[in-house]
Amino acid sequence: MLTPNKIKLLSQPTSEAWLKQALANLDVILLDHSHCERKAAGVAVNLMFRYPSYRQLIRQLTAIAKEELEHFEQVNDWLDRRSISLKPLQPAPYGALLKREIRRDEPDRLLDSLLVAALIEARSHERLGLLGEHCPELDLAKFYRGLMASEARHYGIYWLLADHYFAREIVQARLELLAEFESSILAQLYPQPRIHS
Amino acid sequence: MLTPNKIKLLSQPTSEAWLKQALANLDVILLDHSHCERKAAGVAVNLMFRYPSYRQLIRQLTAIAKEELEHFEQVNDWLDRRSISLKPLQPAPYGALLKREIRRDEPDRLLDSLLVAALIEARSHERLGLLGEHCPELDLAKFYRGLMASEARHYGIYWLLADHYFAREIVQARLELLAEFESSILAQLYPQPRIHS
Repeated sequence: MLTPNKIKLLSQPTSEAWLKQALANLDVILLDHSHCERKAAGVAVNLMFRYPSYRQLIRQLTAIAKEELEHFEQVNDWLDRRSISLKPLQPAPYGALLKREIRRDEPDRLLDSLLVAALIEARSHERLGLLGEHCPELDLAKFYRGLMASEARHYGIYWLLADHYFAREIVQARLELLAEFESSILAQLYPQPRIHS
Repeated sequence: MLTPNKIKLLSQPTSEAWLKQALANLDVILLDHSHCERKAAGVAVNLMFRYPSYRQLIRQLTAIAKEELEHFEQVNDWLDRRSISLKPLQPAPYGALLKREIRRDEPDRLLDSLLVAALIEARSHERLGLLGEHCPELDLAKFYRGLMASEARHYGIYWLLADHYFAREIVQARLELLAEFESSILAQLYPQPRIHS
């Protein structure tokens, strides 16, 4: 059995099938993880450009972007050590499907952007935690565990920003819908091993 | 007289008129500086997205993006201390005019993107240096001087990346053209006080 779902934002925990697929493909998962860290930094920076006057958002997302870039460097060092080149990788449909749920008009757009980012961070946190617990390569397992603290902070911050700019009940109602959708995307394992397969 | 132009990339040094305008409008310059740091981080991150497999570029620009975000936070702390809110500011035409010089087809696009970024960083370095030297508020002058070391590294890194991916004579010929154009934009002072007015 996997560790029970401790990530409150997520509607459903990750399946054992994902963990098995990931552990059998650690190199591809590392490469995909690198792309995920770059994209996570990009999400934070893009929001900073879209809402340049939102002081609280700017403060928190600057810190997140810096940490994602730090992780990106660390994952890339792992790739170097394993002689894996930084080649492109077809992503799982997960990110694009979630992005499509972001409504186009403000202020919905801000709320959805924050909650989708929170869910992606929460799922990454959960899955990196599973790798940290189950990865048979001890150094790599330790690396994944080392990322956990800040990854947990990230989804908390996205949630707190939503809570800062919107009424709690509006955040909660929208989060429930998006969280169910997020879990439904992952209900069927994507055939290629990815962080979000 | 201003300090002679020590920044080798630049075709012409900054005028005394700019320094006078900037020193008379320190609050606006700080706000514009904040926007410049965000944009500088954005330029680095965008290039990381456009060339995700270029290992050397990724390594160097990750470090630059982190430092720009660090400076962005520091400038925003200065804004907070002076009760200046993060409001938008019409930029000087400088950045848009330089961006228009970037050719659209690869590999020219990469070369021009790196050289334009190098020139913007070199000019920022020069002007922050002038503020560090002449700003009458000693704490603020010290802050500007503190940014100098990494700003100097940044334009060096953009130049080195151009030199890494392109033949030296191609880099040099293109740089000369772009540097002349960059100085020509600044030959007439923009009426609003900006880092690149």
